[in-house]
Amino acid sequence: MTIYKAPLNDMRFALYDVLGAEAVLTRLEGGEAHSRDLLDAVLDEAARFNEQVLAPLNASGDQEGCVYDKATATVTTPKGFKEAYRQYAEGGWAGLTAHEKFGGQGLPAVLGAMTKEMIDSANLAWGIYPLLSHGATDALEHHGTEWQQETFLKPLVDGRWTGTMCLTEPQAGSDLGLLKTRAEPNADGSYRVSGTKIFISAGEHDFSENIVHLVLARLPDAPAGSRGISMLIVPKFKVNKDGSLGERNAVAAGAIEHKMGIKGSATCVMNFDGAEGWLIGPAHKGLMAMFTMMNAARLGVGIQGLAVSERALQNSLNYARERLQMRALSGPAFPEKPADPLTVHPDVRRMLLTQRAFVEGGRVLAAYAALQGDIESRDTDPQVRKNAGELLSFLIPIVKGLLTEAAQECTKEALQIFGGHGYIAEHGMEQFVRDARIITLYEGTTGIQALDLLGRKIMQLQGAGLKHFLNEISTFCQTHADNDTVKAFIGPLAVATKTWGDVTQAVAQRAQANPEELGAAAVDYLYFSGYVSLAYVWARSVLAAGDSSLSANDKQAKRDTATFYFTRILPRIHVHKAAIEAGVATLPEVL
Amino acid sequence: MTIYKAPLNDMRFALYDVLGAEAVLTRLEGGEAHSRDLLDAVLDEAARFNEQVLAPLNASGDQEGCVYDKATATVTTPKGFKEAYRQYAEGGWAGLTAHEKFGGQGLPAVLGAMTKEMIDSANLAWGIYPLLSHGATDALEHHGTEWQQETFLKPLVDGRWTGTMCLTEPQAGSDLGLLKTRAEPNADGSYRVSGTKIFISAGEHDFSENIVHLVLARLPDAPAGSRGISMLIVPKFKVNKDGSLGERNAVAAGAIEHKMGIKGSATCVMNFDGAEGWLIGPAHKGLMAMFTMMNAARLGVGIQGLAVSERALQNSLNYARERLQMRALSGPAFPEKPADPLTVHPDVRRMLLTQRAFVEGGRVLAAYAALQGDIESRDTDPQVRKNAGELLSFLIPIVKGLLTEAAQECTKEALQIFGGHGYIAEHGMEQFVRDARIITLYEGTTGIQALDLLGRKIMQLQGAGLKHFLNEISTFCQTHADNDTVKAFIGPLAVATKTWGDVTQAVAQRAQANPEELGAAAVDYLYFSGYVSLAYVWARSVLAAGDSSLSANDKQAKRDTATFYFTRILPRIHVHKAAIEAGVATLPEVL
Repeated sequence: MTIYKAPLNDMRFALYDVLGAEAVLTRLEGGEAHSRDLLDAVLDEAARFNEQVLAPLNASGDQEGCVYDKATATVTTPKGFKEAYRQYAEGGWAGLTAHEKFGGQGLPAVLGAMTKEMIDSANLAWGIYPLLSHGATDALEHHGTEWQQETFLKPLVDGRWTGTMCLTEPQAGSDLGLLKTRAEPNADGSYRVSGTKIFISAGEHDFSENIVHLVLARLPDAPAGSRGISMLIVPKFKVNKDGSLGERNAVAAGAIEHKMGIKGSATCVMNFDGAEGWLIGPAHKGLMAMFTMMNAARLGVGIQGLAVSERALQNSLNYARERLQMRALSGPAFPEKPADPLTVHPDVRRMLLTQRAFVEGGRVLAAYAALQGDIESRDTDPQVRKNAGELLSFLIPIVKGLLTEAAQECTKEALQIFGGHGYIAEHGMEQFVRDARIITLYEGTTGIQALDLLGRKIMQLQGAGLKHFLNEISTFCQTHADNDTVKAFIGPLAVATKTWGDVTQAVAQRAQANPEELGAAAVDYLYFSGYVSLAYVWARSVLAAGDSSLSANDKQAKRDTATFYFTRILPRIHVHKAAIEAGVATLPEVL
Repeated sequence: MTIYKAPLNDMRFALYDVLGAEAVLTRLEGGEAHSRDLLDAVLDEAARFNEQVLAPLNASGDQEGCVYDKATATVTTPKGFKEAYRQYAEGGWAGLTAHEKFGGQGLPAVLGAMTKEMIDSANLAWGIYPLLSHGATDALEHHGTEWQQETFLKPLVDGRWTGTMCLTEPQAGSDLGLLKTRAEPNADGSYRVSGTKIFISAGEHDFSENIVHLVLARLPDAPAGSRGISMLIVPKFKVNKDGSLGERNAVAAGAIEHKMGIKGSATCVMNFDGAEGWLIGPAHKGLMAMFTMMNAARLGVGIQGLAVSERALQNSLNYARERLQMRALSGPAFPEKPADPLTVHPDVRRMLLTQRAFVEGGRVLAAYAALQGDIESRDTDPQVRKNAGELLSFLIPIVKGLLTEAAQECTKEALQIFGGHGYIAEHGMEQFVRDARIITLYEGTTGIQALDLLGRKIMQLQGAGLKHFLNEISTFCQTHADNDTVKAFIGPLAVATKTWGDVTQAVAQRAQANPEELGAAAVDYLYFSGYVSLAYVWARSVLAAGDSSLSANDKQAKRDTATFYFTRILPRIHVHKAAIEAGVATLPEVL
């Protein structure tokens, strides 16, 4: 049985002390009420719900999994999942960050990020259902017509219905240009949608009375490839004029997948057999709406990485403190006990500090990105909004790519601390590893994130977001270069940041001569970017800790973890730099 | 369904071309017959058995797992496992490398390493049963009395019986000094063994008519801690004077564990209730015999890492060649197809080359270590034997530590190449990840290997093995510095090797001042050592490829993979060097 306690102190530290979120949020449009008191109250309530309702269902959900009934094409979720969702919806969590005009609470995205972290720590598999709803909500807020918002968005916001993203097909994974699902127009403006979608999270379940599928498909006159993709709303049950549920639509789950982990999440094959659907956004421009959903989802998946790592860290730290095994190399630390606790062993501390560096740094980084979303939506200055949007879209592949990959390392180290006991199901550590393994794959693999970062955010968009970020870090370094608290970190941060700019220019130049250089550099460039980004938030964390309300121990821990990060993790950028510079010539055809 | 084809060409390349094993083996005592023809015939036969018998049981074994029946305290292995074992025993595989005087074939350990790789690629879970027998065989060969060898060893060698290593107890994992199992003397020279052992692989099963447990326990007059541990032979069924099976001994499986992977391997709780046992080796000196078993097992577990990675590589390479998704960044490579194969993407090639670098390099390294074992046992020159023994004992923690950790990376990348499909059970990739996860834990975690390497092999034994190895590499570098084929690799190898020596001296000095520095450096030192060792075998592989019978493609692939390794993997040593130098100060108490 694993433990989980929401890390409220560290969340507050990230929000208020490092990011100064209260000052930022209360000056945004509609943010007058978003004071620390309000945010704290929400965090407290979220902690209660997640610790008490969702966390205890994590292991049982894994053991039971979802069950598909072929005769009725229905999915039964693990015991307790449905009831937890009812409480979630009744608690207003589904609409936490949705706009008030659709029935949401209009609370900041950065608060949504923190509550999402708690959900995913408590129960990663369960959290996938609301994650999908959240993506659908975003797409409908931005691209839906008034009727679509009234009909489909409001029930999503109040949690009565849930959503999905129906993108992947057997032959079309990362390559959506290959998709074959068709949408043919009816006389009444609706469409008949036909095709098979796979890997549809939350495609069928027992949580809600209806499911809103957002489906990528081709209209009859669609251009080939990714320029001919449209997005359609296909509800599980048709909706009558008055908003009540009508007859069953011609869409159904054909099977669920047997997966390595997240077994409580129903991953469905969805068959569309002339299902009634409604075009959302312009014809053939479905990828735009898809990216709206996808960006929200990618940030969410990055947070999943931090969340599962947080829980793995809590359990491995707990175990390392309690498990007695061997003596400290310099002599017994607790001679009265039969052996010393694992924490006396420097290598165990290395594994713990690795996790902490990624988790606490990742928490600040994800919150920083989410806060850019709030600024982008609601700052009064259009230029500030634009910059924040560029920064956010630049950071999303970094947050998604780095934090999901870091989660592989963190959950691995957490299990390793348990020794052989980590391999046994009853200790729960191996579930974290299995659950975490999906997150570098879905919503775009790490390779896809890397191409988004280097190919799109750097090359196509001329690195607008990177420029903002590099400027911000440089300003930070200049401002605090003589600050005794943080100056030990400023030097290496400034060097790494300068190198980041140089590496970017060099790779961009080489890529203009040979586009294959992009592909050869992308993943290493993603890691490089991620590690420097974490160095920045760690330097900010050390600075912020000084004046914060953290305990003396917690302040020291921030400093220790930053020192660990800078001396033992950040040097990885040199390996990635070497790989980037080695270029495509070192990645020849695999014979 | 996953594929597996024994990599016979690469095995032969490693054996004959890189290591010149035929010349080495045939000049050893009793090795006159160990010609290439003989070894090749064994490899061919092993390939047939493993491809046809064991490989098809890999997925079904995972799905079925082992079943424990409480009423009879028996374990039923997955369908086909028992019959496969019968064929294995009948084929003479159990005694392949055992001494002829015990009924073995006396074939070289390096050949055993190659056949073991095939077994573990074909079916890692199944391979654990003979691995444990092999450890027991080694212990009995070296430490058993004549009666014990006659009674217990011969049936192990002919495969009628199997063996176990009963070390771990709930409170005593890495720390065997804490173990509590007692052995009290009987009047007839036997002992009554009582206690509970956990994590006992192959502790109970349906393969064989008897099981020989080698059990660590304390005699009544035992000193405290690890100096008071004795080893006892406790058979499942007692053995009559004539060697026939007697009555059931008082040892039984109390449960089996539910694990992340290797589900076809029975991991048992073993209860000893005054079971009849026989002391093997001197009283209180059980750790010596234990390390004999353990060293064989550790080399075997290193090979497991290479083996599971080999199969993951085969499948991911196959998939990458067949799966069509997206276009090459420089334009369609196969315009006539709907999309290009994954192999056009440089990052996919990066993931494939990473696997290949570890697998093919690891194969040479493991075979090199195994060959030292042959030289140690059967060279005619005592000094040569001694040196080989020192080299082997130095290499074992490197092979075990590096190849098992590399297997985590390799199986991860292999799964990653499959994208979301990798996460689905039916593709089999996630099983490789789950199965591989045990190998950095059992037979000593990576942290324990690292302490063995740095604390024992370097500090206590004054780095005798390291000196041999560094001398050998330096000689290699000097001899071939002007060789056109390999000189591009000699420079970086020589620098890395020199650094290895320097780092060792520096850390040894610091450790004398503060033993905690050992623990702070050990795992990074292990990686550092492993990466330089692989660089050496890759340089040797490039040199050997030139005159070998490899195809032109395979020769180019060796060169390409070595180039990849030197430019993109070897630079990791700088991160580990930085971590070693950062010292214990950067691993403070975790607050």
